[in-house]
Amino acid sequence: MEESRYGLRVSLPLDYNDALDSTVDALKQEGFGVLTSIDVKQTLKQKLNKDFRRYTILGACNPTLASRALDRELEIGLLLPCNVIVYETEPGHSVVAAIAPVPALGIVGSRADLHDVAAEADQRLRRALEKLGRVEEDGGR
Amino acid sequence: MEESRYGLRVSLPLDYNDALDSTVDALKQEGFGVLTSIDVKQTLKQKLNKDFRRYTILGACNPTLASRALDRELEIGLLLPCNVIVYETEPGHSVVAAIAPVPALGIVGSRADLHDVAAEADQRLRRALEKLGRVEEDGGR
Repeated sequence: MEESRYGLRVSLPLDYNDALDSTVDALKQEGFGVLTSIDVKQTLKQKLNKDFRRYTILGACNPTLASRALDRELEIGLLLPCNVIVYETEPGHSVVAAIAPVPALGIVGSRADLHDVAAEADQRLRRALEKLGRVEEDGGR
Repeated sequence: MEESRYGLRVSLPLDYNDALDSTVDALKQEGFGVLTSIDVKQTLKQKLNKDFRRYTILGACNPTLASRALDRELEIGLLLPCNVIVYETEPGHSVVAAIAPVPALGIVGSRADLHDVAAEADQRLRRALEKLGRVEEDGGR
């Protein structure tokens, strides 16, 4: 797993649709339901008649963590749900990346009462992506 | 209109449902379609049996700006769409808040090529919220 400034990323030797299904499963195992799903390729085609790679933005929400965050900061909904993207790099190869909640929360400012929630979301997303990475090592599902 | 560290906010003397409808209209006039909508009250009730105020998280996307951002930074989907929240403060009174794209983009780091896209999104969201604020002054729609 790689880390960027604002995200966690794993490259998978999986077809895009398989990567998408595996990602939803891995998130579920860490308590994240997928509340929203945006098909970026389809949206850009429909709205702009532009061709783009296969790419989905999932909105993943762990209700317990979201509820705790909302109780502490009502407008934290501006940063929810946690985005997880899945996109195709070439046929049979995909990338899954998740927002890193702790840096993302940085824009709210220094808030100790929110840090533990973000840290738990971060750990759970990290475990989900690590699990996806192991699927690769095991030779697929 | 008020500004918080990571958002723009306007308080409206409108019922929650009217505020929600007016927000969708105001966003549309600035070229933002609503791609996702999360009913937070319903979600917390269903998942946790928890009572919460009326609260919606809208995912607003201006396709032209999103496309430009994705061409410059493939993983910017981690920060898309732009969140706009609508919540009830008391019956007949609601708050609408939008993420401030420029601070949000700060987590990506200093990227001049993304700054103009974020600045344009910022201006458009700001105009949408200013327009909502004027609805108030005009005595409603």
